[in-house]
Amino acid sequence: MTDTASQIAILNQAATGCILIAEDQPDVSEALRLLLKGAGFKTEWANSPARVVQAIEQRSFDAVLLDLNYARDTTSGEEGLDLITRLRGIDAILPLVVMTAWSTVDLAVHAMRLGANDFIEKPWNNARVIALLRKQIDLAVDARKENARLRMERFDADEAREIQRSLLPTELPQIPGIEISADWLPARGVSGDYFDVIKFSETRVAFCIADVAGKGMPAALLMSNLQATVRAFATPERAPRELCEKVNSILCKNQVAGRFITFFYGILELKTKSLVYCNAGHNAPILHRHHGSFARLEEGGPVLAEFPEQVYEQGVTQLGADDRLLLFTDGVSEARNAAGDEFGEQRLLEVMAAHRGLGALELRRKLLQNVHEFSELPLHDDATLLVLAVL
Amino acid sequence: MTDTASQIAILNQAATGCILIAEDQPDVSEALRLLLKGAGFKTEWANSPARVVQAIEQRSFDAVLLDLNYARDTTSGEEGLDLITRLRGIDAILPLVVMTAWSTVDLAVHAMRLGANDFIEKPWNNARVIALLRKQIDLAVDARKENARLRMERFDADEAREIQRSLLPTELPQIPGIEISADWLPARGVSGDYFDVIKFSETRVAFCIADVAGKGMPAALLMSNLQATVRAFATPERAPRELCEKVNSILCKNQVAGRFITFFYGILELKTKSLVYCNAGHNAPILHRHHGSFARLEEGGPVLAEFPEQVYEQGVTQLGADDRLLLFTDGVSEARNAAGDEFGEQRLLEVMAAHRGLGALELRRKLLQNVHEFSELPLHDDATLLVLAVL
Repeated sequence: MTDTASQIAILNQAATGCILIAEDQPDVSEALRLLLKGAGFKTEWANSPARVVQAIEQRSFDAVLLDLNYARDTTSGEEGLDLITRLRGIDAILPLVVMTAWSTVDLAVHAMRLGANDFIEKPWNNARVIALLRKQIDLAVDARKENARLRMERFDADEAREIQRSLLPTELPQIPGIEISADWLPARGVSGDYFDVIKFSETRVAFCIADVAGKGMPAALLMSNLQATVRAFATPERAPRELCEKVNSILCKNQVAGRFITFFYGILELKTKSLVYCNAGHNAPILHRHHGSFARLEEGGPVLAEFPEQVYEQGVTQLGADDRLLLFTDGVSEARNAAGDEFGEQRLLEVMAAHRGLGALELRRKLLQNVHEFSELPLHDDATLLVLAVL
Repeated sequence: MTDTASQIAILNQAATGCILIAEDQPDVSEALRLLLKGAGFKTEWANSPARVVQAIEQRSFDAVLLDLNYARDTTSGEEGLDLITRLRGIDAILPLVVMTAWSTVDLAVHAMRLGANDFIEKPWNNARVIALLRKQIDLAVDARKENARLRMERFDADEAREIQRSLLPTELPQIPGIEISADWLPARGVSGDYFDVIKFSETRVAFCIADVAGKGMPAALLMSNLQATVRAFATPERAPRELCEKVNSILCKNQVAGRFITFFYGILELKTKSLVYCNAGHNAPILHRHHGSFARLEEGGPVLAEFPEQVYEQGVTQLGADDRLLLFTDGVSEARNAAGDEFGEQRLLEVMAAHRGLGALELRRKLLQNVHEFSELPLHDDATLLVLAVL
């Protein structure tokens, strides 16, 4: 059945209104039947917990009026409490209105904590029974609609994430003399983070990382736009600062106030290990030299999508054997722990220093492991890590 | 206050639990106070409808126990019913538990339809009162969290829509000898539809329309990606079929199974009014000749993003003075009425024929008006219309 068809079925049920009376006393059941009939409800009767479960599994009801005490034991309410738990396992929304002559605070609270929607004492007040049933049935119709909407949203969100994932490199290219490893972790279903690795030839590779201001769907739309723009204009001949200028000028035409983008783009000559890069307002990548010192790749200019006709500079650096380069977004460095402290860039440097010998994959995992151990929370921002290891 | 701060405040309230007792009888109020204190609740007392409203406006409560009858009139419940309406206007979620000694079916149903959450008869059962209050407070905490989530989502959706809108031409270019008018109507917040008009020079203009399979966020991400790709590769020198081949080959690299795109792209030479186009699986645009005949622009090939290395054909047609060209997505032609019938392409032709003299703007409006009058429903799919009128 489609969502729409099942929604229409639910609406029709609400109009006709069929109540299951779960009650072992025939006279009580009959009195309820007459009351409910007078108010326009249909009823069915099940006189034992087993028959109640069977009825609920076999067809749809709009609500259940549920006695807590059946033949086995007529005052503790345990049979009824078990039944509530079983029915909730079958249907999370179906209104369950408990009726009992033996109400105590504990029993009432217990029944409602287990999932009963309301609680009626015997002997009941007719007005209350009808009013509560109508209210619970209305609430359940709303809840089922909301559930259907959420299911569709979740389905959409899963697909959106899959599409975003497909915009990133599915496999990082094999590059002689370099090891590359990356993680892309959206805080919500989709992300404003982007990274890419483009192998122009056996001797030249470009890589980039970016962070669109904000999170979620708005950021993801711009990330998707950025990916296509970078892929279109990143060519072996175009210098990093020219690429930044080109991408910036295009993004500035899509005027979205306040949605700037930080971006880092570099081209590595594999023979000479010379890295030419442009940093457009992004957290400066960390270059950990094999002899232990650190450098930060900061040359470039301001963020993208803010200043039309911005001119960018570029930096050049020489990578050496066993150097490690870390590109990251602020979801990594600004991960917070329960006390509100940031992981911070200093800790990134410390983890890199403590694990100098590791390859790209292991270093990337070690960094992320440290971030997770520090924050012990789901990340509050999109996080991306890209590690290059020179062999 | 930020969303997070207000959520924490709500959680703290739930832990302490402060109930407003709205009741004009001091002895009843005192009995309730003692009962609730024993169950761990704080209480405040307001002995008239005016004081209840004042209290609710001034500070936060976790629930209200609400007498329906005050001094003015002690049995009809009208004062209490008015009060429910007023309180619901102030706070849509605050649990309102009505208490009355004068219950009838009508009054109970009425109170709950107006927004009361539950209904307790006097004299009350202690167990019931405590159980119901706890349940209603739990439900309200959940509802406030859900509300905060929905507010954030709505904020995100509004921003996403604004971003998408910014990817479309904000103003259509002024083009000598041609009038262009367009509508872009997302079925949900965002859309899989795309159109563009690119003025290469005073003598050459390109225009396109596209429809990504699906709706909502997944389709919107690909629409954003497509926009950047088209803008990057649409140049005055690149023939329409080459553009389609280029865009197709790039989209095929972002492998998302089933997410094909229909696309139409044309370049119009303004001096000669010669239109070269390529139709990649899109609903064939309708060319309404000034002498009354119709042509459909069908040359091209299959949809984009499905067949890597696909070769496309292109068509050429000559526009004449007073010709009208309609580009549209299937959200227009497949708009349905309540009976499930489609508007259909035949009706598009009929509307165009019936309004031959109109300019681009008026014809576009007339077409949309007819679609809306036919369907009388919100559109179930993204809809886009682009009308060109040759002067």
